[in-house]
Formats: sequence, C-alpha cells, structure tokens
Amino acid sequence: MPGVESARLPAASEFDRLRVVLVRTRNPLNMGAAARAMSNFGFSHLRLVNPFQAGFREARSAVGAVAVLAAAEEFKSVAEAVADCTLVVGTSAVGRRELHHPLRRLEKGARLIRRRLRSSRVALLFGSEKTGLSNSDLSHCHWVLHIPTVPQNISMNLGQAVAVCLFELVRQAKPAAASEQAPPATSGEVERITAMLLDALRASGYTNPRSAAMAEEKVRRLVRRSNLRAGDAEVWLGMWRQIVWKLRAE
Amino acid sequence: MPGVESARLPAASEFDRLRVVLVRTRNPLNMGAAARAMSNFGFSHLRLVNPFQAGFREARSAVGAVAVLAAAEEFKSVAEAVADCTLVVGTSAVGRRELHHPLRRLEKGARLIRRRLRSSRVALLFGSEKTGLSNSDLSHCHWVLHIPTVPQNISMNLGQAVAVCLFELVRQAKPAAASEQAPPATSGEVERITAMLLDALRASGYTNPRSAAMAEEKVRRLVRRSNLRAGDAEVWLGMWRQIVWKLRAE
Repeated sequence: MPGVESARLPAASEFDRLRVVLVRTRNPLNMGAAARAMSNFGFSHLRLVNPFQAGFREARSAVGAVAVLAAAEEFKSVAEAVADCTLVVGTSAVGRRELHHPLRRLEKGARLIRRRLRSSRVALLFGSEKTGLSNSDLSHCHWVLHIPTVPQNISMNLGQAVAVCLFELVRQAKPAAASEQAPPATSGEVERITAMLLDALRASGYTNPRSAAMAEEKVRRLVRRSNLRAGDAEVWLGMWRQIVWKLRAE
Repeated sequence: MPGVESARLPAASEFDRLRVVLVRTRNPLNMGAAARAMSNFGFSHLRLVNPFQAGFREARSAVGAVAVLAAAEEFKSVAEAVADCTLVVGTSAVGRRELHHPLRRLEKGARLIRRRLRSSRVALLFGSEKTGLSNSDLSHCHWVLHIPTVPQNISMNLGQAVAVCLFELVRQAKPAAASEQAPPATSGEVERITAMLLDALRASGYTNPRSAAMAEEKVRRLVRRSNLRAGDAEVWLGMWRQIVWKLRAE
C-alpha cells in the first residue's frame, strides 16, 4: 500500500536467531497466542519445554493454528532447549520472589537482546501460567527481563507478555519521519473558502454590514486555524458554493 | 524490591484520561484479556460498544475477572462512547482495506496520544475480532494506529493488540516536551458541528437522500481533519446554527 511503512524487515535474519521458549505451559490458548504473536512480528522458532501434552495437542490442532506452532520443537529440559544460544533471558513478574539475577526493564533488555541477535542466538524464556519460571529454570539465564506493569497488577497473561516483549524487539527506536498528511491547501484556496463563508454569513444574517470588517478578520483567522489540506479545500469549496447559492436563491 | 525500577507512575492522572473502547467484541476471553492488560499497565476506563451480550456476561463472571471489567461502561454507539474525548484513535490491521484516514505507526501514534492525555481525554478504539472497525466506526476517528506487524501476518489477537498498544503508552522514552495550543474541541462538539453541516448540505441540495449515508461518513472525516479548538468550535456552531436556520426558513 503506498505511503505505508512496512515492519522493520531488514532485521529478518537477526530475528531468525531468536528462540522463544515456553516452559511447562499448560493452556493451549496460550501456546496458540504465543505462536500467533511470533507470526505477527516475524519470529519463527518456538521451543516448548515439557508442555502439558494434552494442551499441546489441542493447540496444534486448533483452527487457525499458525505454522510457528506446527514447527515448534519439544525439549525435556531448559538446558537442552537453550544449548545452542549464547544469551539466555528469563522473564518474571517482579516482586513475586527474590531474584538472584540482574533484572532489566523491557525497554533496556530488548536493546541488549537485539544487539546479541546480530551475531548469535538468544533464548527468551517464559514460565508456566501458574508459577512462572522456577529458580532452577532461572539458573540457566544470564539475566531477567521484566515488563513494567503497575505494582498492584504485575501478573500478565502469557500470550500478552510474549506479544509485548516481541513488539519491543521489533519496534523502531526512531520511526522514520513519514509524510503522513496530504499537502496543505494553498493560501488562494483558503482565501476562496473564507470569502464563501463570509458570503454565507452575510446572506444568513449572522453578520451585519456594520460589524462586517471585524467579522472578516475573525473569520479569516478561524479558517486558517483549521489546517486545511489540499484535497479537503476543494470539497469545502464545493459545499460552500452550494450553500451560498441556496441562501442567495430566495 | 531494591534496585527495581517501578512503572512510570507519575503519569497516573494522564493514564486516567484514556478510554479503551471495544466495539462489537464477541469473545469473552478477549474482553477479559483487554481488561487484564489495562490493569497490568495502570489504565482503568473500559468502554464497550454493543458487545455480544452473552460474551459480556461470561467475561464479567469469569474467575479472575478484573475490576476494570466490572466497572466497564456500555454504549449503544461509537458516537456516545467517544463524546467526552478530544482525540479519537482507531486501530486497524493495515492492508485489510483502503483507509481514508491518516495512518500512524504505533511508536509515533502513542507519542501523540500521550501528549494529548496530558490535557484531555483520548479514546482508543478496537474493532470486533472478525471484521475490525467498520468505515462507519472509523468515521469517528481522527486517525488510525497500526501495530507494525509483518505483511504476511497482519491480523493480531485482540487482547494482544490491546496489550501492545498500552505498553507502548507506558514505556519509557525520552518524552519530547511540547506545549499545546488552545485545548481541542470535544468529540461531542465536533459531532454537533458535523450534524449542523450535514443539515446545511441537505437543505442546500448538496446531498440527496440516496447518497446521504456515504456523504455522512465523508463529512465526519472531513470535519475531524480540521483539528478544531474548543473556542473555535463554539464559533463554528453559532455560524452553522444561523446558516441552517436561514436555509430552513424559506
């Protein structure tokens, strides 16, 4: 679509190095949601450590299950699932317990992950819905990522947590300035609209000859504050022409 | 917990001005997920426009349903749900159809929303799971937000889309200080002006009954692109009232 910025595609090979690792996930909907968010943001390698088997089967056979889920790899332990990665990052709802790991807010953590992805594989671990990652799981991690939730409600839905983390990985730090708006109307167009409007105000009795001069200035400023765009100016002109014609037609 | 950065709390009053509006949502899990993401990130005002009633009841009575959902307000139309907001932003999976609105990537759009939240209310609209926001829904919006997904998988899960948008609103950046001009007009004022203008167009013969529906959407978008200020809105209303009165007086 013209004028629409596409996602951050140059990084595709970097993103190909990320491994999203779900540890002991139970709910098939969450497995599906994690896989869907991965598809949305251009990640394709999903790993499952000891998933609840019935849930995994259900998730895979669900209508609309994405390719990411079909290609998911299964592992018996966290150690095996992260063996080929040079950086292993856990996720945690902070406050749940004492962490023995450095804790990084998502905004900063994602920057570090992105940097590492340029050269090697990174594993991003998400724990089970009920208990999160255990201390044993976390012992495989270099540091822990936390999503900045409010202290009163720190526990996020798994699929939503995955989506937010992945979005932060693809988001553009400085979005390219895009010319999003149509070009502005010319002063000539704006002035023609002003004239029409003034004519309508006179014809309708809104202004009278004595106050006309002051009204004209006010109306001119009013119309200019509207930031008219080129295409819109034409439409407004057409409308005003018709309204004035009707007002004068009596 | 020592050493842990807390969420961006100083902005609590700003966040209190956001209205998350779910339009024609069907799935109770999605209603619950949207409410949960709101709780996680410190937003509390949820509005539902014509939700699927059975789904709404189920979502509200679900175990773990959050306070946000219990306090959700219900509306019969998008117009009513956004009437007290000065900025109305739609969300869309880009590429689904041609948009008649300015399109902003989430990174940039969130900055604009945040800036407006400093002074007044903003509505953020999410459409139904199947069809998203209709053109009629979008005609109430000033612009449209899109989450930068990959072109092959643009359609996001509703709960995940809400989570990602809200996270972008709370994430820490280096907010550019900008003092705004006069306060913007409320959607209610803008809608009254739109109604007057439509009335004038009908009375003048610019629109005919057959084309009225399409014209209405176009006019609604046209007026919203004008970025009306609170003081100016009153002036425009006065003018239109007089013009319509005169047109109808024949």
